[in-house]
Amino acid sequence: MKPLSSITADMADDVLFEFLHMEIVAHVYKEHATREDIDKERVTCVSTLELMGFRVGQGLIERFTKDCPTFKDDLDVMKFLCKDFWSTIFRKQIDNLRTNHQGTYVLQDNKFALLTQLSSGKQYLEEAPKYLAFSCGLIRGALSNLGLESVVTAEVSLMPSCKFQVVIQKL
Amino acid sequence: MKPLSSITADMADDVLFEFLHMEIVAHVYKEHATREDIDKERVTCVSTLELMGFRVGQGLIERFTKDCPTFKDDLDVMKFLCKDFWSTIFRKQIDNLRTNHQGTYVLQDNKFALLTQLSSGKQYLEEAPKYLAFSCGLIRGALSNLGLESVVTAEVSLMPSCKFQVVIQKL
Repeated sequence: MKPLSSITADMADDVLFEFLHMEIVAHVYKEHATREDIDKERVTCVSTLELMGFRVGQGLIERFTKDCPTFKDDLDVMKFLCKDFWSTIFRKQIDNLRTNHQGTYVLQDNKFALLTQLSSGKQYLEEAPKYLAFSCGLIRGALSNLGLESVVTAEVSLMPSCKFQVVIQKL
Repeated sequence: MKPLSSITADMADDVLFEFLHMEIVAHVYKEHATREDIDKERVTCVSTLELMGFRVGQGLIERFTKDCPTFKDDLDVMKFLCKDFWSTIFRKQIDNLRTNHQGTYVLQDNKFALLTQLSSGKQYLEEAPKYLAFSCGLIRGALSNLGLESVVTAEVSLMPSCKFQVVIQKL
């Protein structure tokens, strides 16, 4: 029998989440593949994945911030998200956070975990958005539970780097 | 800003996987909820989840056993599954492994991670199978990649304890 140390916990959790995420994306797209209006279905798939991410993000942030002090402002929340939240889920922090100080934030991840399994060739660029929808939802769900409603979008220009744009909705 | 230690990696990964799993189950059942033949659809949902688990199990075992020696027999494989594989995914080992030495194995987990979120009341007993299908697939996928074809079923008699029965298919 092999020693327990042959599987490290980190390695296992990384791939478990990544594999499960790939399965979800494949499943959601497959179930819509046979339907007629392809463009409309593409929107539905993105929404489905985004909503799943939203609920998971809400659940996670609820657990993570149970015993935490309140945040002093929106920027403070965003920093928490880029550092603690991100590194817990994706094993690294966001590489760059920019803001216009008017409610728009751009989070750049130079090596986004959920894109690293895809080839970096140009032909995969158009495939990339479907692997980002869940994570947009994660961010939106986390922010929502911290009292900030937002619109979150993502773009990839050079794999596996990507940018998430968060626009806080003022009430 | 809160210290990074406020979120422990273990805690995060546990819930990330559990939340994602709950989302998948809910999604697969919801998409079939509106269809007509309920019994038939229930079978389809279980198969869908089982197949997702199968592929994830295949992928995981491929990573985990990359640098590992071969196993000396089927029992050796099952022990690896109960100990290393299980504790990496579910944070605890299988509590009890029994076999008839003719290819049938019963794996008992007295506190199965994916059932602990459900209430332990009797009314949830009939809900339980849908939270076990993915894990049956995980086991079958892992075994398949180790060269053993099997049929895996699960039963719950007292939540959150459950038994997985593995019957190895002799070629």
